[in-house]
Amino acid sequence: MQLFFYDSLLGETFTFSEEESKHCIKVLRHKIGDTLLLIDGKGNLAEASIDQAHPKQCSGRILKVTQFEPTLPYQLRLSIAPTKQHERMDWLVEKAVEMGVHHIGFIQCQNSERPRINLERLHKIAISALKQSKQYYLPTFSNLLPFKEALSQGEAELKLIAYCLSEQDNSLFSFLQNHPKTIHLMVGPEGDFSPAEIALAQAHGFKTCSLGKNILRTETAALFGIAAAAAVLGQTET
Amino acid sequence: MQLFFYDSLLGETFTFSEEESKHCIKVLRHKIGDTLLLIDGKGNLAEASIDQAHPKQCSGRILKVTQFEPTLPYQLRLSIAPTKQHERMDWLVEKAVEMGVHHIGFIQCQNSERPRINLERLHKIAISALKQSKQYYLPTFSNLLPFKEALSQGEAELKLIAYCLSEQDNSLFSFLQNHPKTIHLMVGPEGDFSPAEIALAQAHGFKTCSLGKNILRTETAALFGIAAAAAVLGQTET
Repeated sequence: MQLFFYDSLLGETFTFSEEESKHCIKVLRHKIGDTLLLIDGKGNLAEASIDQAHPKQCSGRILKVTQFEPTLPYQLRLSIAPTKQHERMDWLVEKAVEMGVHHIGFIQCQNSERPRINLERLHKIAISALKQSKQYYLPTFSNLLPFKEALSQGEAELKLIAYCLSEQDNSLFSFLQNHPKTIHLMVGPEGDFSPAEIALAQAHGFKTCSLGKNILRTETAALFGIAAAAAVLGQTET
Repeated sequence: MQLFFYDSLLGETFTFSEEESKHCIKVLRHKIGDTLLLIDGKGNLAEASIDQAHPKQCSGRILKVTQFEPTLPYQLRLSIAPTKQHERMDWLVEKAVEMGVHHIGFIQCQNSERPRINLERLHKIAISALKQSKQYYLPTFSNLLPFKEALSQGEAELKLIAYCLSEQDNSLFSFLQNHPKTIHLMVGPEGDFSPAEIALAQAHGFKTCSLGKNILRTETAALFGIAAAAAVLGQTET
């Protein structure tokens, strides 16, 4: 069944955004009294009913809330240097949400190509991917930070920085086999991290890691990390 | 350094396609006598020099050929039901080439949304991704086949069919841990494979496999499989 997004399911009522109202009333032609399923991206699923079938401001009552546990037994924080083409970040966010990620932060590196990102747009894509893949937890996002500041954001048991010149022995898989519960993965721009940035990351407890012999684009490298974590940690028999 | 594509490096000369000629002569402004690096997608890298700097038919001599071994120690054959939006197949092909895949075949399933694909377009995207990621082996493609016929295409040690209703125990990771050398992975349409298709695949030696608890789009499921194989099999210490 179709899911709708409303970011607070703790009260007794809901009022959709203009976009969600239009989708619900104009596109899907819901009427007063119809029952809907709402998610808030914080683990809650609500049954709700429409009181006002307004095409720009649909509202109603929350009838029942069920809380879900996260599906993945680990948390992955991704820090990434945005690509010049915003489409590449768009689809990264969509795929990352489908496969599972807990936070996406953007970083400004020495070789960065692009100084700005549109967080609002990425947030919308994330909500859409969440609804499409029937999940209950929306990742959080953080705006462009200088590389150095991002190094100390968030706590993680395993802190990795993807680096083309890393020794092949330090494979991502070898790190995942230790079953970390929290991971912070840093992915650099097309020109990779600079040696100075790598040294700084190492001083902050990050280990360099190899993503294999093939040279991956920034967004492919990020997706490779997210998929590998989901395959190895999300699918391990416990 | 920039790589150019020419599909036969066994002779003594090359003549670029109109597109490659334009890129070489008009965009990159190469001249007679310039040395280029050519790949053929079959493991060969050639040094060549330009004799005719024609913007539509650039040609020259092959000076030296070096053959490379495949970078990945396994072969992955993907069979996938094409999505309705061709953009989703476009980027799947780009990412699959970057991460590593040996064959991409398209299948027509009971719940398929789309009867045609543009192989020529996908082939171009694959060549571009190959050049960008500095690889020497281009995957092969095969055109839309009925699901039943695709089941007997290609030999593989491990034959898997991704299925949402598969038991979580049959995780992709658990199969990859046996280090197969050749894999055939089947990924179905948005409505998944039908029970009859699953039964038919099982009769052909395929095992159902789970890609985790999250519901993935067709192209995401394929990418998840390709990334997991690359992470587990391509990065294992030997």
